[in-house]
Amino acid sequence: MMRYVLILAYDGTDYGGWQIQKNKITVQEKLEDALKSVFGERVCVTGSGRTDAGVHAAAQVCHFDVQTGIPAEKIADALNMRLPQDISVLKSYAASGNFDANRSAKRKTYCYRMYLSPRRNPLKDRFSVWVKGGADVTKMREAAALFEGRHDFKAYCKSGSKVKTTEREIYSVKVVSHSNGFGTDVEIRVCGNGFLYNMVRTVAGTLLYFSQGVLSLDSIKKSLYDGDRDFVGKTMPARGLMLESVEYDD
Amino acid sequence: MMRYVLILAYDGTDYGGWQIQKNKITVQEKLEDALKSVFGERVCVTGSGRTDAGVHAAAQVCHFDVQTGIPAEKIADALNMRLPQDISVLKSYAASGNFDANRSAKRKTYCYRMYLSPRRNPLKDRFSVWVKGGADVTKMREAAALFEGRHDFKAYCKSGSKVKTTEREIYSVKVVSHSNGFGTDVEIRVCGNGFLYNMVRTVAGTLLYFSQGVLSLDSIKKSLYDGDRDFVGKTMPARGLMLESVEYDD
Repeated sequence: MMRYVLILAYDGTDYGGWQIQKNKITVQEKLEDALKSVFGERVCVTGSGRTDAGVHAAAQVCHFDVQTGIPAEKIADALNMRLPQDISVLKSYAASGNFDANRSAKRKTYCYRMYLSPRRNPLKDRFSVWVKGGADVTKMREAAALFEGRHDFKAYCKSGSKVKTTEREIYSVKVVSHSNGFGTDVEIRVCGNGFLYNMVRTVAGTLLYFSQGVLSLDSIKKSLYDGDRDFVGKTMPARGLMLESVEYDD
Repeated sequence: MMRYVLILAYDGTDYGGWQIQKNKITVQEKLEDALKSVFGERVCVTGSGRTDAGVHAAAQVCHFDVQTGIPAEKIADALNMRLPQDISVLKSYAASGNFDANRSAKRKTYCYRMYLSPRRNPLKDRFSVWVKGGADVTKMREAAALFEGRHDFKAYCKSGSKVKTTEREIYSVKVVSHSNGFGTDVEIRVCGNGFLYNMVRTVAGTLLYFSQGVLSLDSIKKSLYDGDRDFVGKTMPARGLMLESVEYDD
């Protein structure tokens, strides 16, 4: 058996997320269907982690084990012939050493996109969320700095999530904005060693609420130090979220 | 009667272009339906120009004349409540002087987007065209310079187009590119006083063919000086084209 790595891009709009589950069409399921068609046997993939329902990926990473004569770099094309239009394998290659797409992952970067504008824009709606009216992007940056470092993100995950610990280390939270006469595009890019369910979407909502004057900096500090959910913003819609990259030690 | 101006964004994927025509759903038709619903009477709009079937607009400009008590800036919201999801009015205001969205237009900017990559990317497909394999973007820039200035673009319009003259003045052709590990995004931004049917898409195809070594610089010069269609690239697909802005003298 050989281990192979895939890097995938997908438009998550019509999927119940990455991970296979009952009663929902998932990206992993579509990928395993395509793998079965290529290799003639059931092949299980391990992703770097889940992406939630409706969330997109520019470069999700996964691995699988199989015995095959197909050259590693050709597997991508064989899969793409069988995958639906909203999923594409960008690269396939043989894994080196004891690579594991999930356990070897060191850093992940997610980007949350919103656009602040008096009016909706159909060109942006698929991968970004409309926020009616303005927001102070400088204030977003000010609040973003609070999230960097190791914190207990209990207040930022969906209650009832089954996880060993709600502590995570965030390496950076960067806010980039671009304005024109119709509004402002905002990208909130969060890089960390791991993320809880809904965490990036709730961080994005918290930066937005602070920038709109709905939350204070003290409230956000409380949420991070006391784990108090009353002091965080709302969880923003899934379609603004994109898994941008997963990094591994070489 | 008062004259009003609208600035619209639309995803042209599902439309037979801007201009009303038989047997096709068009953006102008959807807009005039919405105007009728708002004002209770048929209102005809004049666009800055047509966009072809499948072409998008970030800021199409149009005007119409009507007698109404609705404040100019509120017309946008009234229309947006009635327009389909892929069309949005970004701004509405009262026209000044004898403004005419078509005749007063001084400069238009179109952007053609393609991405050069060994594999298709579902995140880009809606507003950009996949070009399998690479291309030399520096060569694209070299050829782009040839198009600047006043030329007879006979070779760059669909044969049979009914126009008085095929001469147009192009103020600039700029090629911007951005690469990552999966490929290169290319934006070809063309600014001019007017464009022939299919012209920007054919210029884009010509830059691509030159960058791939399929056409020579001499061929392109021939096409511009002799109007010879044998020396131009293919017309690229509509979905890569976006009307970005229309400028007027203030």
